[in-house]
Amino acid sequence: MNSNMHAVDLLIERIIEKKSPIVVGLDPILDHIPSFIKRKHFQGNLGFHSVFEVITEFNEIVISKLKDIIPAVKPQIAYYEKYGSEGIKAFEQTIKLAKKAGLTVIEDGKRNDIGSTAQAYADGYLGEVNIEGKLYKSFDVDFLTVSPYLGSDSIDPFVTTCEKHGKGIFVLVKTSNPSSSDFQDLVLSNGKKLYYHVADYINRVGERTIGKYGYSLTGAVIGATYPGEAAEMRKYLPHSFFLVPGFGAQGGTVLSVTNCFGENGLGAIINSSRGILYGYMDSHSSDLDSATYRSLFYNSAEDMRNSIVCELKSRFQGNLLY
Amino acid sequence: MNSNMHAVDLLIERIIEKKSPIVVGLDPILDHIPSFIKRKHFQGNLGFHSVFEVITEFNEIVISKLKDIIPAVKPQIAYYEKYGSEGIKAFEQTIKLAKKAGLTVIEDGKRNDIGSTAQAYADGYLGEVNIEGKLYKSFDVDFLTVSPYLGSDSIDPFVTTCEKHGKGIFVLVKTSNPSSSDFQDLVLSNGKKLYYHVADYINRVGERTIGKYGYSLTGAVIGATYPGEAAEMRKYLPHSFFLVPGFGAQGGTVLSVTNCFGENGLGAIINSSRGILYGYMDSHSSDLDSATYRSLFYNSAEDMRNSIVCELKSRFQGNLLY
Repeated sequence: MNSNMHAVDLLIERIIEKKSPIVVGLDPILDHIPSFIKRKHFQGNLGFHSVFEVITEFNEIVISKLKDIIPAVKPQIAYYEKYGSEGIKAFEQTIKLAKKAGLTVIEDGKRNDIGSTAQAYADGYLGEVNIEGKLYKSFDVDFLTVSPYLGSDSIDPFVTTCEKHGKGIFVLVKTSNPSSSDFQDLVLSNGKKLYYHVADYINRVGERTIGKYGYSLTGAVIGATYPGEAAEMRKYLPHSFFLVPGFGAQGGTVLSVTNCFGENGLGAIINSSRGILYGYMDSHSSDLDSATYRSLFYNSAEDMRNSIVCELKSRFQGNLLY
Repeated sequence: MNSNMHAVDLLIERIIEKKSPIVVGLDPILDHIPSFIKRKHFQGNLGFHSVFEVITEFNEIVISKLKDIIPAVKPQIAYYEKYGSEGIKAFEQTIKLAKKAGLTVIEDGKRNDIGSTAQAYADGYLGEVNIEGKLYKSFDVDFLTVSPYLGSDSIDPFVTTCEKHGKGIFVLVKTSNPSSSDFQDLVLSNGKKLYYHVADYINRVGERTIGKYGYSLTGAVIGATYPGEAAEMRKYLPHSFFLVPGFGAQGGTVLSVTNCFGENGLGAIINSSRGILYGYMDSHSSDLDSATYRSLFYNSAEDMRNSIVCELKSRFQGNLLY
């Protein structure tokens, strides 16, 4: 491993320091972004470059307001790619802003491909790219989500790149969406469900990169909407940190997500995207002013953090590390 | 469907017109791109913007030389994303060049995510994006490859967007890589392999978009390296067009890929990336001149086309549509 710190160790230290096992999903949805931001950039200037400006300012507002109460952000790259190279410029800018604010960046890209192509993704997001013998960092996120359908030779390049650069991945195991049962839950002839086979792979490769808190650089995505499966996976994958989507809007509750944690309150980070950034829409029009918007999403994030920590304290009592 | 033509019908017409069921993978690998292109842009100007220039010129050379003997190109987006927003600019430019040259663009992105996020990918690549009520095309490719692990609610948004805009997807079913057996071949308790379940989904949704040649907008990725499975899938998925990777370097042969076609010579398009663009490295240094390089890759593409068509003719005789 080079000079980069073990990404999971660093994430854990930020979780402990901020007493906050939550991550805010940075999903810039134009229709939901408050008008005070859009007005400024769209006035007489519609088009992709103005979208870049809107997204960048929106994320800057969110990051600067929340940086002391969250350890990480999770930009979902689909919402940036949607706007072509200008969208990707906003994604690059967002990564820089988040890292400068001391936050861990978890890219939700669900990338995957066969060997050499997987290596290209790994180089661009987690490693280095070689231009005529000179090495450059391209996106340089801390974590990337990875899809497993193509098999081990499509995940290995991510694993080895993480090992070299101290970065991490979260492999999709049991996802939060209703149709996750379509394929993930199929029962195999040996009686095991498919997602257990993916978990077996994670256990196998994770052994090589276990950090000081007992968690490897190969994590798992485990949906908050399946608390029973989450509890099973917590035991089955003792060395994997979990990225947990599905809290709030999708149906995951404070009680259900505690199944993703170990006794010391580590082992998982719970994501919320819309609940925090666009929850304002339940009570306000998109014409609300900047200060009101900031306090609304700040309060949502703080509420989420506090209610999860409170539940963890009540469940694990003195064992909690924060 | 709007004014866009059914993407599979259009692809088939181009295949028939050019007597060419092959697609060239545009995977710009800097180390393999001939020096005469790199010298021009990198001299004193290393960095991401120069990479944009190199990739764009490289693809322009390939597209302009091959456009009369191939119906389609398949840019693998990993090799562009690798270089951040400048790489994506090169991807955008490549799509424009290919479409201007009358080629079908198959984006190999293997995208997938849950409902609303899948919709964001679908809008950006295959549909339209809405900026303050005005609709824009972002990448506007003809086809996108899609990964299925998350289940039906993660593929449906792509299917409905294709239906609306006449675009197509190729869902990963049985891929060409050695580890494709890790998960795809797992035998379920009902005795069927996992990839058959993915095929069942494709059959179900494909019914809605069958075009005039009998093929739907929901295609399948079937690796050239598994000819037995390909023959089974050809029967099992009668209305799905196949995108077939794995020819050449990965081990797929002329004989094996004919299993992917129906009797009229339709039903599949065979991809080659490195064999065509970087085959020159077997016999030449990267210092070869422009004219030599052009004729080498042109000959490779022509050879591939001719040998596949010859084999199809010998197999299906008078039934071939071209």
